[in-house]
Amino acid sequence: IQFQHTSMTSVAAAGARALWHRFPRRLASTSASPPVVSEVRDSVARVTLANPKQRNSLSLETLRLLESTLNKHADDSAVRAVLLRSDGPVFSSGHHLREMDQGEALRRDVMSQCSRLMLRLHSLPLPVIAQVSGLATAAGCQLVVSCDLAVAASSARFATPGVKIGLFCSTPAVALARSVNGKMAMRMLLTGEPITAQEALASGLVSHVAEDADLEATTETLVAMVTRHSRPVVSMGKQTFYQQVKLPRDEAYRLCESTMLANLRLPDAQEGIAAFLEKRQPNWSHSDKEVVEKQK
Amino acid sequence: IQFQHTSMTSVAAAGARALWHRFPRRLASTSASPPVVSEVRDSVARVTLANPKQRNSLSLETLRLLESTLNKHADDSAVRAVLLRSDGPVFSSGHHLREMDQGEALRRDVMSQCSRLMLRLHSLPLPVIAQVSGLATAAGCQLVVSCDLAVAASSARFATPGVKIGLFCSTPAVALARSVNGKMAMRMLLTGEPITAQEALASGLVSHVAEDADLEATTETLVAMVTRHSRPVVSMGKQTFYQQVKLPRDEAYRLCESTMLANLRLPDAQEGIAAFLEKRQPNWSHSDKEVVEKQK
Amino acid sequence: IQFQHTSMTSVAAAGARALWHRFPRRLASTSASPPVVSEVRDSVARVTLANPKQRNSLSLETLRLLESTLNKHADDSAVRAVLLRSDGPVFSSGHHLREMDQGEALRRDVMSQCSRLMLRLHSLPLPVIAQVSGLATAAGCQLVVSCDLAVAASSARFATPGVKIGLFCSTPAVALARSVNGKMAMRMLLTGEPITAQEALASGLVSHVAEDADLEATTETLVAMVTRHSRPVVSMGKQTFYQQVKLPRDEAYRLCESTMLANLRLPDAQEGIAAFLEKRQPNWSHSDKEVVEKQK
Repeated sequence: IQFQHTSMTSVAAAGARALWHRFPRRLASTSASPPVVSEVRDSVARVTLANPKQRNSLSLETLRLLESTLNKHADDSAVRAVLLRSDGPVFSSGHHLREMDQGEALRRDVMSQCSRLMLRLHSLPLPVIAQVSGLATAAGCQLVVSCDLAVAASSARFATPGVKIGLFCSTPAVALARSVNGKMAMRMLLTGEPITAQEALASGLVSHVAEDADLEATTETLVAMVTRHSRPVVSMGKQTFYQQVKLPRDEAYRLCESTMLANLRLPDAQEGIAAFLEKRQPNWSHSDKEVVEKQK
Repeated sequence: IQFQHTSMTSVAAAGARALWHRFPRRLASTSASPPVVSEVRDSVARVTLANPKQRNSLSLETLRLLESTLNKHADDSAVRAVLLRSDGPVFSSGHHLREMDQGEALRRDVMSQCSRLMLRLHSLPLPVIAQVSGLATAAGCQLVVSCDLAVAASSARFATPGVKIGLFCSTPAVALARSVNGKMAMRMLLTGEPITAQEALASGLVSHVAEDADLEATTETLVAMVTRHSRPVVSMGKQTFYQQVKLPRDEAYRLCESTMLANLRLPDAQEGIAAFLEKRQPNWSHSDKEVVEKQK
Repeated sequence: IQFQHTSMTSVAAAGARALWHRFPRRLASTSASPPVVSEVRDSVARVTLANPKQRNSLSLETLRLLESTLNKHADDSAVRAVLLRSDGPVFSSGHHLREMDQGEALRRDVMSQCSRLMLRLHSLPLPVIAQVSGLATAAGCQLVVSCDLAVAASSARFATPGVKIGLFCSTPAVALARSVNGKMAMRMLLTGEPITAQEALASGLVSHVAEDADLEATTETLVAMVTRHSRPVVSMGKQTFYQQVKLPRDEAYRLCESTMLANLRLPDAQEGIAAFLEKRQPNWSHSDKEVVEKQK
């Protein structure tokens, strides 16, 4: 498989072509290397989409590997956040077009696995931060939208260009419509054209934008701000957040009142409040075992 | 009926007065001309609110004519988008006040017909793009909000000023609250004062803003970007979009997975993907008949 | 209790420390003064959080007093809006930490009373406008989010910093998630860091920003714009707004059509429309008794 050929087989490559010349080319070293790699450093699972030859397309294999990688890190009590980044000039180009062309059974599996991954990002007990350089399109854009936080390089671009090749980005639109306003979602979906990092920030598709040269530093600062906190406190808070947003406001309050009370039974809440009152730094245990309260 | 008189009989004219001097006056040529006219050009149904003498108020007649005009074009397979524009300095001033003053039976019909039109804009199988110059107020503002895309002239203004004449814009608020954030909606509803085109863009009330002199050109460019795509692909995508936004996220994914699979059975999806892989422009059939898949 | 000590006992003081030096210190005159005071002037109930010594923390007493104060003014037909402001450099620092440390029964009461107040702000038959200078954090930030309108001084800051002391701001997140986009909510909740007034405006957390020196004047102008209208018209409009946003779009339209018809039966709707047609200022009765329609 030649680079020029495989570079064409992703939903978003049409959109990518115009932007392609902006980015240096970088090829995967061997075809046998896995499309997702990860390592843990400074309590952060650093997950990398590592298939730039195929523009980090979300093949069935990649989707499954991403999900199992996330699950593995979620089970590791030493990990306090996930950083999702990509090798190469395209963050991710979405579904692998070759997999859209081989019968409905495979397509069905791809679609189903993709939605599962996106929903898993919300239920995961760790914050997930995307670091986006280059182009994020179709399901690749959906992936950024589905992360808790996202830092975009100022040259990054976001698109849902499926309509250009006759395949409307309906599943990416599920995440998009719950993230940006309706007019912006329709602009992206009906034209297929990319928006800039600044437009993505203004509309809530990403949470931060950094100058290209500062992307790594800005991301690391953000990651450090998130990982300085207690693991079970963040876990409980994040998971409750995505549960409550689905509920009517009054039911959401009842759920979150329960969560606050449960949070206050965690040793790290007692430590955090005590440290604050004693004007010292907290010393987190990161334990998720609720404590029996001392009587007052 | 004198111009000055009729110019007063719309909900929004209060808001309009302050802005009125900004716009050149243009009168309808005859009182017998229909309040909505349309023509098809370049695959686009160009629908015009053509009653500037009455500030394009949404009388029962106008609402009905708008709906039947939209339906007529939706049934025309040669049409791929609707462009909604207005004659005169006021895009639309909302309900016709004279119809609010003639008994509850008429009011009820007007309200019901108005909501029906707004909902129809979302279920219509064609993208609807508003081109807004001048003032869009009350149900006229709701009309812009209810279109899929909207290009505003930079001098355009948007308001829900009913509260000023003792009639809170509750039905326009249904669309508004699902388009802009709560604080912006309340600002517009409780003060009745207009917001600028830039504020409308920043808050998602419109999708694009153009310099007044560039309004037509910008709109045509956007319309061309939308109509270059396959009709049934856009249709399926748009209609599914408004269905899925109503659903919980997981159910929305299931619906959209089905839509993606159905979309892939359209001949234009197969053509689009093939064209992409073969590095050529697609040749759309615009057929909505699903194809039986060739075995692999 | 020394000032330095009590200043530490609020959830948000961690975030406040960095900003503290920006504001002049101002102490409550006596410890016995109530934490909430109010007066009616120009048809506006001016409610002040008046416990700057404890950074206007939302103790159980304060929450109850706020609710009863709001209810009292809602029952006063001479009042047409509520203005909520604060004494001192901190608008409100959220829950009183000392109350988080004294057994689950008290915590449960505090949480429940807090949610009740926030929901009451939406059901209250008067518009509520927050005037925010200084820092609004945790439940104090939630309070601003829960008001209908909010004017922030340009130096104001907003944060949900609970995660820093091991207590994730889950209940503030209920309001936040329904006000700003998901990425902004997650940025605030996961980092605990404050956002600026401009960021709050852009994301919909507040409706207006004024230069610090213009804060009072800007707020009074806004309040005057809101209170010039008919009390029952605004009441009906505001209360319906928060009911309809919970509903599917088509059901929301049905509800609001009924509201519009009921609104048109108010004497102030008939007066407002008549005044408009007669080109004169309306003379509101502010009566909430529906009128029997004159036959036409």
